[in-house]
Amino acid sequence: MPRTILMLPGDGIGPEIVAEAEKVLNKINDQFSLGLNFESGLVGGAAIDETDTPLPDETLEKATRADAILLGAVGGPQWDSLPMAKRPEKGLLGLRSNLDLFANLRPAILYPQLASASSLKPEVVSGLDIMIVRELTGGIYFGQPRGVRELESGERQGYNTYAYTESEIRRIGRVAFEAAQQRGKKLCSVDKANVLEVTVLWREIMNDLRREYPDVELSHMYVDNAAMQLVRAPKQFDVIVTGNMFGDILSDEAAMLTGSIGMLPSASLNSEKQGMYEPCHGSAPDIAGQGIANPLATILSAAMMLRYSLNEEKAAEAIEAAVSKVLDQGLRTADIMSEGAKKVSTREMGEAVLAAL
Amino acid sequence: MPRTILMLPGDGIGPEIVAEAEKVLNKINDQFSLGLNFESGLVGGAAIDETDTPLPDETLEKATRADAILLGAVGGPQWDSLPMAKRPEKGLLGLRSNLDLFANLRPAILYPQLASASSLKPEVVSGLDIMIVRELTGGIYFGQPRGVRELESGERQGYNTYAYTESEIRRIGRVAFEAAQQRGKKLCSVDKANVLEVTVLWREIMNDLRREYPDVELSHMYVDNAAMQLVRAPKQFDVIVTGNMFGDILSDEAAMLTGSIGMLPSASLNSEKQGMYEPCHGSAPDIAGQGIANPLATILSAAMMLRYSLNEEKAAEAIEAAVSKVLDQGLRTADIMSEGAKKVSTREMGEAVLAAL
Ligand SMILES: CC(C)[C@H](C(=O)O)[C@@H](O)C(=O)O
Ligand SMILES: CC(C)[C@H](C(=O)O)[C@@H](O)C(=O)O
Repeated sequence: MPRTILMLPGDGIGPEIVAEAEKVLNKINDQFSLGLNFESGLVGGAAIDETDTPLPDETLEKATRADAILLGAVGGPQWDSLPMAKRPEKGLLGLRSNLDLFANLRPAILYPQLASASSLKPEVVSGLDIMIVRELTGGIYFGQPRGVRELESGERQGYNTYAYTESEIRRIGRVAFEAAQQRGKKLCSVDKANVLEVTVLWREIMNDLRREYPDVELSHMYVDNAAMQLVRAPKQFDVIVTGNMFGDILSDEAAMLTGSIGMLPSASLNSEKQGMYEPCHGSAPDIAGQGIANPLATILSAAMMLRYSLNEEKAAEAIEAAVSKVLDQGLRTADIMSEGAKKVSTREMGEAVLAAL
Repeated sequence: MPRTILMLPGDGIGPEIVAEAEKVLNKINDQFSLGLNFESGLVGGAAIDETDTPLPDETLEKATRADAILLGAVGGPQWDSLPMAKRPEKGLLGLRSNLDLFANLRPAILYPQLASASSLKPEVVSGLDIMIVRELTGGIYFGQPRGVRELESGERQGYNTYAYTESEIRRIGRVAFEAAQQRGKKLCSVDKANVLEVTVLWREIMNDLRREYPDVELSHMYVDNAAMQLVRAPKQFDVIVTGNMFGDILSDEAAMLTGSIGMLPSASLNSEKQGMYEPCHGSAPDIAGQGIANPLATILSAAMMLRYSLNEEKAAEAIEAAVSKVLDQGLRTADIMSEGAKKVSTREMGEAVLAAL
């Protein structure tokens, strides 16, 4: 059964890193006879420049038909002054929402070979392995009403709506409980239930779900405390589940604990396990086109894609093993460079992974 | 001119730590002939237990009349199952809102004597001195409409509103620009202007204000990136200004970078410089009543009170010098204890500060 992967390089370093991941996927496709077909499309700033919209219909159609999507990154300063509806980010948000990719999985893992890259003390982060499950198609990102209105006083007021229904909370809760079952069996739900009504409902539904997963230990934490605990003692966490906005903040904080955000992949899944995969880092316009970006987060995103959307665990593990091997060989792109290692370009890193496969 | 200070011990360790701060204020009152009168009142869980409401009218009246308020902390597990409107936190939120204490100043300072308490590497945090200016009476904390409603489908939806008017943004912006003028002249405004309309307005107003403060260098950062940058390189920041919810999260994260949240005071001011002062840490119910809590954040909050609301800079500096002296003497409460130091109780720490005055 042939399966289709849509490649969306996007902006900034996106094209460079996706190119390396594509080579890796091609080789693994042959090695494991996966029957993958590749398509490509425009999204974000690249799409704005060619078609005047961040998510062209053609891209959305291809995305809907694809079994999985590999995205580079979107955004850059040249599009920052556009009105909100026309910005590169809307391409990303449109894909998430149209494909109903509600479950965002963001691992924060410290690679032992890169332990010294962290700004935290080694004993605080060594062996760190957290999974953040972020709700991705609801909450304040998509809540209505929203906008800027003029008040009677004549001054303007900006407003957004933070809303969740029971079923939205339940389905992301299930994903998180299931992830915890397959890991350390500890789930921490993060909310602000002492202030926000929407998160009181969130907490209630999480508590309800507990009955279906008696083997998982559920705890609750306020978001301000979670932001603190991630700095103080991050290894206390196994799986964290939270809403879209809190998840945006905490997953970036958690990623940075490792010091090597250039290594971290992510998955965004719908209930059919169709998924979009992308590195946690952004489009890094400052280094775009220089051939020095780290392609490993994108290559590891391809591995996640094989695991979650294509059910090819062995192929996923082969890629992950190859990445581990190049790190063992001491190869480093600039962002993870340290004394005594060998500095390589984006392409050299991609080639090294290919060779290690 | 006599001035009135309202003491609100609150819950958990609140009464123990406020008692020490009160001794310090009494002594400084005599030494500097400040003419301070002290009153006290109930708030939070303590008020619920006695009067069935977290903010009794009597407390609100006293607070309104007072020149400044010193608060311990509110909240504890015994009140966690109460409905939102009756919880201890509502006492705190009610004071903030009724007194219009819109400007929350939260310094994150690393005391050189306590450098080893941080979970971050010494070179990343040594000399850290950030001021977070958080808007405290608007945003999603107070936005209407809010609640839980039943949808036509029969399921419930929780919702809150994140809103800011131009004038709300402008007044907190001015406080932040002025704080930056008196410090390192760098201001970073944190928003999520790539997704939330309310923060597009926020960014616009901050940009407008720039003209009034040409000596301050203004930058903007998305909240997810700010959460990352605080971990990666916190010393890049001087003053950070942001809304109520983002400020809640980022100020706790920043405080924890120091590893000694038991040391950090905060101020909440209105436009008449009337203010409420409280430690950044919470009510710590797990250690309440044991006499081991750290009173220094509350004592330093009293110093902030003298500086900001009572215009007694010399008296404020005297307290801060005394705190620094007891740290130099190697005295440590349990939370900041390290090898070779002398472990002391809450009361011993308070007495040591008194002696150092
Ligand atoms: C680019 C932006 C809209 C996006 C988000 O806020 O979700 C990004 O920060 C992310 O986390 O994927
Ligand atoms: C207790 C709670 C309501 C409060 C807040 O969220 O503002 C606290 O976390 C704080 O930061 O002062």
